Amino acid sequence: MIRLEEVFRAQTVLRPIIRKTSVVRAYGIAPHCELYLKPENLQITGSFKVRGAGYKMAMLTEEEKKRGVVACSAGNHAQGVALAASKSGIRSVICLPDSAPISKVEATRGFGAEVVLVPGVYDDAYRKALELKDSEGFTFVHPFDDESVIAGQGTIGLEILNEMDDIDAILVPVGGGGLISGVAFTVKQIRPQVKVYGVQAVGAPSMYNSVRDGKIETLNTVSTIADGIAVKQPGVHTFDAVSRYVDDIVLVNEDEISGAILSLIEKQKMIAEGAGAVSVAAAMFEKLPLEGKKVISLISGGNIDVTILNRVIERGLMKTGRCCTLKLELIDKPGQLKDVSRIIADCGGNVTEVHHEHAFSTESVNGCYLRIKMETVNYEQVTAIREALKAEGFKIV
Amino acid sequence: MIRLEEVFRAQTVLRPIIRKTSVVRAYGIAPHCELYLKPENLQITGSFKVRGAGYKMAMLTEEEKKRGVVACSAGNHAQGVALAASKSGIRSVICLPDSAPISKVEATRGFGAEVVLVPGVYDDAYRKALELKDSEGFTFVHPFDDESVIAGQGTIGLEILNEMDDIDAILVPVGGGGLISGVAFTVKQIRPQVKVYGVQAVGAPSMYNSVRDGKIETLNTVSTIADGIAVKQPGVHTFDAVSRYVDDIVLVNEDEISGAILSLIEKQKMIAEGAGAVSVAAAMFEKLPLEGKKVISLISGGNIDVTILNRVIERGLMKTGRCCTLKLELIDKPGQLKDVSRIIADCGGNVTEVHHEHAFSTESVNGCYLRIKMETVNYEQVTAIREALKAEGFKIV
Repeated sequence: MIRLEEVFRAQTVLRPIIRKTSVVRAYGIAPHCELYLKPENLQITGSFKVRGAGYKMAMLTEEEKKRGVVACSAGNHAQGVALAASKSGIRSVICLPDSAPISKVEATRGFGAEVVLVPGVYDDAYRKALELKDSEGFTFVHPFDDESVIAGQGTIGLEILNEMDDIDAILVPVGGGGLISGVAFTVKQIRPQVKVYGVQAVGAPSMYNSVRDGKIETLNTVSTIADGIAVKQPGVHTFDAVSRYVDDIVLVNEDEISGAILSLIEKQKMIAEGAGAVSVAAAMFEKLPLEGKKVISLISGGNIDVTILNRVIERGLMKTGRCCTLKLELIDKPGQLKDVSRIIADCGGNVTEVHHEHAFSTESVNGCYLRIKMETVNYEQVTAIREALKAEGFKIV
Repeated sequence: MIRLEEVFRAQTVLRPIIRKTSVVRAYGIAPHCELYLKPENLQITGSFKVRGAGYKMAMLTEEEKKRGVVACSAGNHAQGVALAASKSGIRSVICLPDSAPISKVEATRGFGAEVVLVPGVYDDAYRKALELKDSEGFTFVHPFDDESVIAGQGTIGLEILNEMDDIDAILVPVGGGGLISGVAFTVKQIRPQVKVYGVQAVGAPSMYNSVRDGKIETLNTVSTIADGIAVKQPGVHTFDAVSRYVDDIVLVNEDEISGAILSLIEKQKMIAEGAGAVSVAAAMFEKLPLEGKKVISLISGGNIDVTILNRVIERGLMKTGRCCTLKLELIDKPGQLKDVSRIIADCGGNVTEVHHEHAFSTESVNGCYLRIKMETVNYEQVTAIREALKAEGFKIV
């Protein structure tokens, strides 16, 4: 059982380790409610994980501290443990699958951990970590299913209650459930009328399914841009806490997560990772009864790979008419490209890519396809370009 | 002449209008110094401009307030004036060239201004604004060359001094010079030993040239990703203040600005616009004697168009080996694409685009080109892929 005094103690212990993340008002993202953000993406290491790890370190015996800790993660937990251990003068060993991105490996080393690259996937790295625990006497730091870790995450709940009056609801991303267990437990002890909602990705609904069915269930596969919450099975402690203290869990899809990331960039000048943005997506796409309410979306982290960020932005641009791709079927004769270019330029489109290819499926033996990618202002402009091309006899396929 | 008591008065006036932007420590961006950021990109309207505009409104007579204000801008100044006027219950009219992006027009309207779209370019909109000033009795709010506006921006200097002890230098983006005039004046009155440095883009060095030559000079053209500081001519007041109070001005190029934007995303989870990032670029690329110093880079704004952001990220990815494009010259025979795909996959590259085209310049009549775009981990991987392709006889062109 988690105890409230542990959360209070964690708050004191964590003060010198963590960064203060003040709640900020977010305008224009979810106009039907009064939305605030708790930006743990701005936390040191780029996620909340340093809290649970930091409190876990503090709770070790002197003997355990001397021996060191081991953890397994390719993401935020690794960096959280590494930093928390360094700050406490404790040795840390992190097992990672050797397929982990170099950037994550370097970041983990940068925070002071020894990294062990294990051939294979996550499960192999996990087994290696348990092996090291036994052979070296390390303490294993679980990413979520541990009462000290949960108490550490609960400090976020305390901070929100200390900073904000009269809030109606807190929306929290859910992977293994450590974060929401700590927050929901803490909030319900102190201000039980505040609703605590969990948000998962459609592609990884392990806690959602488990709570719905009243028992811990395991997914065979998970697939989502929100890799930080792509967890196949909830923990025992976290399943219990979520079942008791969380008011509801909802799901958001990949487009909604991308839309939330893009909105946070445009409206808040803030980078969230997929997992971090699900709580914003749930408010933005009205998954919960929040009309007129004072709502806090907890952004759990901001460690998104820039290649993924690029794809998210492109998808967002396509979806809002700010870039588009047209494919034209042409007869291959002189002047066609010139005419198409002129029409697009006259409508204000900005061509960024052109592909011209012979076609064998067209009626004429001289048929060809022209695929043009361009930057546009909005859907109206895209429509105007299409209409102008058609008016001059071009066939859009 | 600006007076310090004006800056103090502005601080009081602005308290209910602006958002508090606390200085944050930035790790890993400029390791040779102790770098902090003053994040005015997180300011309401996404830039510092609301400060100068807000204080300007407060200084109007009751008669002037009743008549309203007019301004001309396609960017941050428009939104700053719009919001400051709305908050003060003053009518505002903003003239924009009709080529202005819809998003900026909507944002300006969203903050409560009436927008007048003027056919032509910035200069046409500017003339229209002066016309309306005369015909309607509006007060014209200059974006930088106005002592009340400068005093308003000076509040940023006060805030930095109130929050931070023992700082050695403040780096400030320079366009027309309103921001740096206010900050440098204020800082030099209170703590003259603190250095204040200006940063401009190589493509728009108007203040840099003017200060160097000791007289106001006008550029014929400006061209930079940092559109917020693409100003052809400094103001009279700002040229004077910069000449007196600023220690030095340096220039950064487009790649350096892009690199700073990307670093702020990856390390700070923060979006800066080009103009906002030049002060970070100057620290990151060691343009100033900051070794071992405690330095504050002022990020002036975060209103970057996401299409530009996408290009910045792509350029950054290319430059750090995290994506690459290879062009191969092939003989057009079955199995070639399969072999190339296999080699790339074996090296861990992730193909995202393929173009296969007949070639007429190759030796063989069956020659063709294959252009492949892929996501990679780093330069070493790119090299490994190139070597592996060559080892199996493929020709990279």
